[in-house]
Amino acid sequence: MKVGGQHFRTIWVQENTHQVCVIDQTKLPFAFEILSLDTPMQMVHAIQSMQVRGAPLIGAAAAYGMALASLQASHDAHFELTAKMLKASRPTAVNLAWAVERMLHVLLPLPFEARQDEAWREAEKIAEEDAAQCQAIGQAGLAQIRRHHQGKKLNIMTHCNAGWLATVDYGTALAPVYAAYDAGLDIHVWVSETRPRNQGASLTAWELAQHGVPHTIVADNAAGHLMQKGMVDMVIVGADRVTQVGDVCNKIGTYLKALAAHDNGVPFYAAVPGTTIDWKIAPQDIEIEARSAQEVTHMLGVDEYDQLHTVRIMPAESAAFNPAFDVTPARLVTGIITERGVFTPVQLSAQQAKL
Amino acid sequence: MKVGGQHFRTIWVQENTHQVCVIDQTKLPFAFEILSLDTPMQMVHAIQSMQVRGAPLIGAAAAYGMALASLQASHDAHFELTAKMLKASRPTAVNLAWAVERMLHVLLPLPFEARQDEAWREAEKIAEEDAAQCQAIGQAGLAQIRRHHQGKKLNIMTHCNAGWLATVDYGTALAPVYAAYDAGLDIHVWVSETRPRNQGASLTAWELAQHGVPHTIVADNAAGHLMQKGMVDMVIVGADRVTQVGDVCNKIGTYLKALAAHDNGVPFYAAVPGTTIDWKIAPQDIEIEARSAQEVTHMLGVDEYDQLHTVRIMPAESAAFNPAFDVTPARLVTGIITERGVFTPVQLSAQQAKL
Repeated sequence: MKVGGQHFRTIWVQENTHQVCVIDQTKLPFAFEILSLDTPMQMVHAIQSMQVRGAPLIGAAAAYGMALASLQASHDAHFELTAKMLKASRPTAVNLAWAVERMLHVLLPLPFEARQDEAWREAEKIAEEDAAQCQAIGQAGLAQIRRHHQGKKLNIMTHCNAGWLATVDYGTALAPVYAAYDAGLDIHVWVSETRPRNQGASLTAWELAQHGVPHTIVADNAAGHLMQKGMVDMVIVGADRVTQVGDVCNKIGTYLKALAAHDNGVPFYAAVPGTTIDWKIAPQDIEIEARSAQEVTHMLGVDEYDQLHTVRIMPAESAAFNPAFDVTPARLVTGIITERGVFTPVQLSAQQAKL
Repeated sequence: MKVGGQHFRTIWVQENTHQVCVIDQTKLPFAFEILSLDTPMQMVHAIQSMQVRGAPLIGAAAAYGMALASLQASHDAHFELTAKMLKASRPTAVNLAWAVERMLHVLLPLPFEARQDEAWREAEKIAEEDAAQCQAIGQAGLAQIRRHHQGKKLNIMTHCNAGWLATVDYGTALAPVYAAYDAGLDIHVWVSETRPRNQGASLTAWELAQHGVPHTIVADNAAGHLMQKGMVDMVIVGADRVTQVGDVCNKIGTYLKALAAHDNGVPFYAAVPGTTIDWKIAPQDIEIEARSAQEVTHMLGVDEYDQLHTVRIMPAESAAFNPAFDVTPARLVTGIITERGVFTPVQLSAQQAKL
């Protein structure tokens, strides 16, 4: 998508070199900086420090980490050690392990001299597949948006960042938004800030602003009121995991938006790659990660001189609790938007063979 | 209630002087500073700048502002001009106008020489009445809490700050919490931070910490998840206005908590003085104030050296919208806790004569 009028992906290989470039997402929305990575250890650090984040993007980043390893040596032990380091950099990221395993599976059977070229080819393929999948999600979502649009201005609410920054390009929840905007539909996005890490207000708002999509940031608390007042036509969120009956595990606060959508007759969608659907898990078995209390008690921002500060925003004596995700029951979900089309929770189980 | 082990109210008259003391609430939770006010204009400034805030407290503060005026002159025009300035300091605060009118009503019929003593007496009376009313709300709420308590630890969730800082003493939503804690009940409070102004994380957490009440701050987004997990036994919030059928107009985000409480069978109460019930208004006629976008885009906190900074936390290019209140429909409300007892929405209309 666009940054300052120019087309960017979140990860790419510098022409005529073997440098992997990524956008340093820890600096957003305050600065747009590009990191050039030369070694697999630099990639491990970029993933660990969340300079690259978002499950699909991390997968592609790990694949490129393996390609960077191929510049150093081509024997099995080197690839295996790199794979181990990459997998340990964000241990809960499923895509990361998947991409690393796929690279090993492709590379290890090859003769040493063929490994380097193949490593770059396979990493590129993983990145391209991700972009294509997101683009397909966008087209499936666009068809759904057209149904709600009916020629009038359409207000779409999203939560957290499931935009192109979280993927190689296009995004998941925002892919339909970009598709609609690029198709000339009159849309406006309500961006809920997504405390405590504020991915909505920082990343989603930034990428929408850069691409030119009209949007307004609101406190998470405002979602219900906007829906009561008829100011939201549909909600589209991403998801970390979807159960086979359509329960949606996503960033904390998603459940509250789904409740408000249901109470006000606003359609509520999750947009995900088919691989996000976990055909085995029951909603009560999804473990909810409790993250550092510091994400609640402290906040990063810039002062009037554009100097970055991390400030404590509550009493030092008070404890904070920080569950990172919640599960929205399928009864509140209108549909799951995937690269293969849009399915109601009831239709979902029947799709297991295809997705 | 207590601050550092010592008993405080939010407003009091310095012994042997005619100085009015207030806690500077703009400094909380980062510093506890007391302001001594000598003139009615200083009180106007304190109200305007939100050094004193909270509808009941503002009423008492305005009454003391009139008492401070009596030190300067005793003729009608002086009281009337002071009244006008005080009313203009927070034009939407109903209690403020009410308290000022009451002072004029008491003072103007008196001979000049009797006005000064009477002004201080009447202001004291207004403050005492507010404290007594809040204490009664606390006792009514305590009876309700005992019903839910059943000997086990009780988790109460609140939103925004309807604590003693918003009143002369005890608070409204927090009055039952303090009553329960002081009665030795095993309680714990979930404090939702209440973006965008963070009154929960700053004021509510601070006053609970000072009084010693166990509490934990969470992002507003976490409310639904905590209720899904059975970690909340009841919700008590304050209200700016309650309709005669029990719709609750309160800080933005209250509606989302009420939806989650309803979806999970958690009782949801609003605790208010009877004067907060508006017997005439319909919920759709309640005007929702849109406040400055800067409350969303910027945040106040302290850095590691305890220096205060106001930082921008989102892209400068993105607009923000900041509706300040929402209306929770009566169907989601278990009861209204008042100084005269607890009423279900259905019982409420029948109480008009008494409240």
